[in-house]
Amino acid sequence: MAEFLTSQSEDFSKWYNEIVQKADLADYSPVRGCMVIKPYGYTLWERIRDELDLRFKATGHVNAYFPLFIPMSFLEKESEHVEGFSPELAVVTHGGGSKLEEPLVVRPTSETIIGHMYAKWIQSYRDLPVLINQWANVVRWEMRTRLFLRTAEFLWQEGHTAHATREEAEEETQRMLQVYTDFCVKEAAIPVIPGRKSESEKFAGAVASYTIEAMMKDGKALQSGTSHFLGQNFAKAFDIQYLDENNERQYAWTTSWGVSTRMVGAVVMSHGDDQGLVLPPHLAPIQVVVVPIWRKAKEREAVLAAARDVKERLGKLVRVELDEREGLSPGWKYNDWEMRGVPVRVEIGPRDIKNQNVMVARRDIPGRDGKTIVPMSEIENRIPALLETVQNAIYQKAVDFRDGRIRDVERMDDFVEAIDDGFARAFWSGDREDEARLKEETKATVRCIPDDQPGGSGTCIYTGKPATEVAIFGKAY
Amino acid sequence: MAEFLTSQSEDFSKWYNEIVQKADLADYSPVRGCMVIKPYGYTLWERIRDELDLRFKATGHVNAYFPLFIPMSFLEKESEHVEGFSPELAVVTHGGGSKLEEPLVVRPTSETIIGHMYAKWIQSYRDLPVLINQWANVVRWEMRTRLFLRTAEFLWQEGHTAHATREEAEEETQRMLQVYTDFCVKEAAIPVIPGRKSESEKFAGAVASYTIEAMMKDGKALQSGTSHFLGQNFAKAFDIQYLDENNERQYAWTTSWGVSTRMVGAVVMSHGDDQGLVLPPHLAPIQVVVVPIWRKAKEREAVLAAARDVKERLGKLVRVELDEREGLSPGWKYNDWEMRGVPVRVEIGPRDIKNQNVMVARRDIPGRDGKTIVPMSEIENRIPALLETVQNAIYQKAVDFRDGRIRDVERMDDFVEAIDDGFARAFWSGDREDEARLKEETKATVRCIPDDQPGGSGTCIYTGKPATEVAIFGKAY
Repeated sequence: MAEFLTSQSEDFSKWYNEIVQKADLADYSPVRGCMVIKPYGYTLWERIRDELDLRFKATGHVNAYFPLFIPMSFLEKESEHVEGFSPELAVVTHGGGSKLEEPLVVRPTSETIIGHMYAKWIQSYRDLPVLINQWANVVRWEMRTRLFLRTAEFLWQEGHTAHATREEAEEETQRMLQVYTDFCVKEAAIPVIPGRKSESEKFAGAVASYTIEAMMKDGKALQSGTSHFLGQNFAKAFDIQYLDENNERQYAWTTSWGVSTRMVGAVVMSHGDDQGLVLPPHLAPIQVVVVPIWRKAKEREAVLAAARDVKERLGKLVRVELDEREGLSPGWKYNDWEMRGVPVRVEIGPRDIKNQNVMVARRDIPGRDGKTIVPMSEIENRIPALLETVQNAIYQKAVDFRDGRIRDVERMDDFVEAIDDGFARAFWSGDREDEARLKEETKATVRCIPDDQPGGSGTCIYTGKPATEVAIFGKAY
Repeated sequence: MAEFLTSQSEDFSKWYNEIVQKADLADYSPVRGCMVIKPYGYTLWERIRDELDLRFKATGHVNAYFPLFIPMSFLEKESEHVEGFSPELAVVTHGGGSKLEEPLVVRPTSETIIGHMYAKWIQSYRDLPVLINQWANVVRWEMRTRLFLRTAEFLWQEGHTAHATREEAEEETQRMLQVYTDFCVKEAAIPVIPGRKSESEKFAGAVASYTIEAMMKDGKALQSGTSHFLGQNFAKAFDIQYLDENNERQYAWTTSWGVSTRMVGAVVMSHGDDQGLVLPPHLAPIQVVVVPIWRKAKEREAVLAAARDVKERLGKLVRVELDEREGLSPGWKYNDWEMRGVPVRVEIGPRDIKNQNVMVARRDIPGRDGKTIVPMSEIENRIPALLETVQNAIYQKAVDFRDGRIRDVERMDDFVEAIDDGFARAFWSGDREDEARLKEETKATVRCIPDDQPGGSGTCIYTGKPATEVAIFGKAY
């Protein structure tokens, strides 16, 4: 249990690998680079999926499903796209006992196959916009993998939209970045920096890529969602044309945007501590755990009856579990649920029953400071309200942590210091090659050109050239 | 629209292929044997998924996710399993630009990889039962494919459970068959016959397979869900052992059970008619469509305002859509929504507004007989109630249809007549070879040995040997 968990300050990376397994989020699989998402981790993903899906539908999108396999020739139709993805492909060469005429790629992303279908479906301006999302598995053959953060197969959603005009497509790209930001802030309690990707970090085949960047508790950056403006690149490669109102043929403008099971890793590394996970109540598979406490056997029945009653009352309002396991001490159970990051624990013992109280403990505030006595009659009001308090507190803590580790710098030695445990913000006017050199020298990359700009102009931190934009730099997962 | 739809009596198979595409359920893909599930079809699948998922969770199951790829050697550990599936495998031989040391199979089903993980997770009787379900895509390289019914890639759920005793595992197998039956009857409005599969039709590697068989409107059978008792076959192949209460090592007993996107085909072929789909209200993506009607331009505003008001009021209770499309006649819209199988249509015109009424039409009863005038003030009560009425009526119609086409037969010429447009029920004591011959001679197979048995004994319809059980026979999809 908790005592065997490496502390974050000792080795953050080891802490991560341990907690993901100890908290039953995921396990390694016998297949190189693939993970097994265990029930607790999958339920967390289901919560993420459901919250995102609600937002997609509220912004007019519908779900559909496209084939897992893509003919190799499709990828080759967009030159940057195939160049970007070909080193990472898994290829099916045999089917039904025979060698295939054309090898099939296991989708690394679906712009190409969806582009092919859109060309068939879209004829007139009346067919636009097409606003489709897909929940699916994708495969990118990674050499160095880490559970949730980088796996050969992962689960994600990929939105693919087609529009009549450049403006509409650009609006869509921004809208979905905003949807992702809203989800991160309100549900995952993760503050993110929305902005534009630099040339070298943008999606293979995109005109422009946008990202939300989050800071993990080791100060490193995690790209948590991306939204791409694809211009007419894929429309031209797949011949997605429509007749406009003047009966003239036009190429459509397309976008794509995605969030993956990586988000589970973001939640773990944004909020977790040395006792284990700290889950935001909005996403926690179990929001409240009820732990019955007794010393003498004769107390057992009354305590369990009261605990079951509390569970049933709360069960109508929140996701609650009653820990009736036998042969485990209350202290052991506390550690166990703390490790799993359950936001609120309710303890009930003989004295609580006598006083018609329960003891309520917050996961995000360890020890006595996080404990409150709540009258049994008030649990329906107080516990759901407390979950909201915890949600906000976790978010605020993450904001404070991050803001304390973003430094505005003007000189390279300050830059290097800043990226050692956080982000640097500085004027930037480098090109692809400058970025590559900067990464080699410092291990930091341009995480994004943030939407939030100071304005004015300055000097590029790296090249010394005049610059009009600041960038956010950090070491990234 | 509807006028271009082949009638069921003319060519049922052609009717099916046409309606699946015309109603925007699915489309062919450029990848051999794979389908594209379009938004309307996918939403229907989401409804099926959600209803099943509720039932899985209510019976104590949790969701998880296992890798898409399975090492070829895993399949070979269970001899019947690999023999059954090897002709249908898609094989990945290259990853990340290199040839793989061991080829990976794209999962055709996941008993093997899950068995491997269970062997790792299960140590003691305290770890049992393990009750996990997975929603996933699977691939079986089929030569002759049909949208939803038989595709190389399909979506499904596969439950995989492990138990301490044979009895528990057998109970689980039956419980899940019952869950499937309940779903079909209450949500899909499809009557099914639950029963045991014959030797030659059982799952590769199972001790016994159970099925629910439905009759389509052409009298053919569609296997709609299966539940397998795997005995200790996979536990022995993957070494799933636990220490029992006496500290002795025992093999676990396992089950698996699945329902796939084939269920969409079952819904289409159980209820559809010459006008198109007839969707059961519980699963319909759109339960009610509101069609505004006006002739003169000056009527437009008032009609649209009333229609929007109706949509908003109903939107709190049911899944409703308002058809505001311009330039299409009401009649055209009626046909369009009928083709898509929307259970209830609400028509609003100037006269309805004057009388404070709406006209309500049922999809399942064509023409005037299905129309009722409903006071505007009563729509919140009447429309949801009407949806339940329609749900029950569709189910009853399917029961009556099926029951009229199941014939008890004792002679082969009656058998042949029965299976021409329905099912035959007859005493059966044949073996694998008898089944193969029967199929060759009549195209019919043993669909199941139904749970519901007349008792007593008789003479096998085919072999003439003494028999104690009746079987259901039919031509199958």
